[in-house]
Amino acid sequence: MPRIAYFGPQGTFTEQAARAFDEHADLVPLSTIPEVVAALRAGAADFACVPIENSVEGSVSATMDTLAADDPVVAVGEHVLPIRFSLLTRPGTAAADITTVASHPHALAQVRDWLGKNLPGARQLASTSTAAAAVGVLDGEFDAAITAPVASAHYPLTVLASDLADEGDAVTRFLLLAPPGTVTEPTGSDRTSVIVVVSHRPGELAAMLTEFALRGLNLSRIESRPLRARFGEYRFYLDFDGHVSEARVGDALAALHRRSQDVRFLGSYPKADGSASVAVPGSQDTDYEASAAWLAALRRREQE
Amino acid sequence: MPRIAYFGPQGTFTEQAARAFDEHADLVPLSTIPEVVAALRAGAADFACVPIENSVEGSVSATMDTLAADDPVVAVGEHVLPIRFSLLTRPGTAAADITTVASHPHALAQVRDWLGKNLPGARQLASTSTAAAAVGVLDGEFDAAITAPVASAHYPLTVLASDLADEGDAVTRFLLLAPPGTVTEPTGSDRTSVIVVVSHRPGELAAMLTEFALRGLNLSRIESRPLRARFGEYRFYLDFDGHVSEARVGDALAALHRRSQDVRFLGSYPKADGSASVAVPGSQDTDYEASAAWLAALRRREQE
Repeated sequence: MPRIAYFGPQGTFTEQAARAFDEHADLVPLSTIPEVVAALRAGAADFACVPIENSVEGSVSATMDTLAADDPVVAVGEHVLPIRFSLLTRPGTAAADITTVASHPHALAQVRDWLGKNLPGARQLASTSTAAAAVGVLDGEFDAAITAPVASAHYPLTVLASDLADEGDAVTRFLLLAPPGTVTEPTGSDRTSVIVVVSHRPGELAAMLTEFALRGLNLSRIESRPLRARFGEYRFYLDFDGHVSEARVGDALAALHRRSQDVRFLGSYPKADGSASVAVPGSQDTDYEASAAWLAALRRREQE
Repeated sequence: MPRIAYFGPQGTFTEQAARAFDEHADLVPLSTIPEVVAALRAGAADFACVPIENSVEGSVSATMDTLAADDPVVAVGEHVLPIRFSLLTRPGTAAADITTVASHPHALAQVRDWLGKNLPGARQLASTSTAAAAVGVLDGEFDAAITAPVASAHYPLTVLASDLADEGDAVTRFLLLAPPGTVTEPTGSDRTSVIVVVSHRPGELAAMLTEFALRGLNLSRIESRPLRARFGEYRFYLDFDGHVSEARVGDALAALHRRSQDVRFLGSYPKADGSASVAVPGSQDTDYEASAAWLAALRRREQE
């Protein structure tokens, strides 16, 4: 039974995502994202489950920074979870009794309208996680908690309301991380993630993006953050369609490697939405084989 | 002794260029450019010498069309000749006796000012080549001929004036062609020529040029002409710095091959001006080796 370390405590959305990757896994909650990834690097866990981005809040900086630093780890899967909250109370509590409601600030922000309409008199208090708020309710610290649905499986609390979300389509994307060298087999619907350090030469970012465009590789995400230690350089997080074993993806990765002293491969893994990667004309593996054969013949002085 | 077929007759600039490639060669003048290249294709000559472009008149269409059609041939050398003319007459003729002066129309065009000042009364007549004009003078058909300097070595005529050129820096570039499969060794100062058929898809020309730009390959010449037989497609003649055996050049050629159904390699050969090809950072052969090794390790699941 594989051990999956995840960003806990128990009862969070990250636990839900970890269960989605493997419902029979031995789940190990740890309290910070760096601790989760460190457990994987140290061999204390086989996999690590962490949030990478939320459609409302944006990137999870702690995950991004952890992936860029120390020894590399690679993603072998992604899971996209619709973010819909439950309102938990102690048994017997009615909505009218609620004077305080607690949750992680991001969660409170995502149900602000609902709280304004349904619990207008309740004071909103911040907790370190949605699950910590549930523990606070259990301990009598707060009257109610805004939590992930899975929290009700861990704590003897009542679900007073569920499926709460101001933005009906908010989602969070989670990665399942594994030790470096783990690469999934290509499925025809894969995503590849990399971190590239780009020097501040004129046109260098445009050149990097053009390397993808020319090979017909669809970029699904690009995020930059300046490197404080090295002024004038930027770290880019890139997600794009395709698998490292495909010719056009390998060709683009090799081009990035020539452009940058610092490319970190973050894995090729099946896309959560299962949408097929489409190769533009001339970018199929067979096209690469044909062009390589043609060039090799030229160099052997055997022109067709 | 190699046989070089050239665009004759004897006494033209093309003969001068052919001598510059190999002064001991057996030179075979033929009367049209297609005949010269056909002799090479048929094995009747080891090499063929043809003009490819003139700095005043532009490309030599007959050469361009011949290179694109039928079996491929490849350039193994180029020679750039300054175009300066001689004025030849029959012995005993003085400038004041000249009532007619003949030459190829391109040659007449390049000394128009000189003729206007020095032979204002002479009628200008067209001949099929500069050398044919010399023959016409010999036969008494014209009084004077505007010719290549080398013509005076073939015909018993007097050089009345030499070093004539309205544009002091006019040059013609000649190619030495060989059978396909002949490729010179790289010298560090090489040029590669190709013909690419580009479909009329939006952005396709920009994409093709970007393939060169990303690899730091300097394009020294680009010429297009529409393909009459296939509406919406264009044939591009491209010259760029580098040798087919260099990694960045091979990489660009393979990319062109994937973009186009129709790429014709016209050879890699030493540049006439001897200027060194400069590789931009990240585009040396060693950079290609390093990126290929990195990618291969990723694919073997052996991430650095």
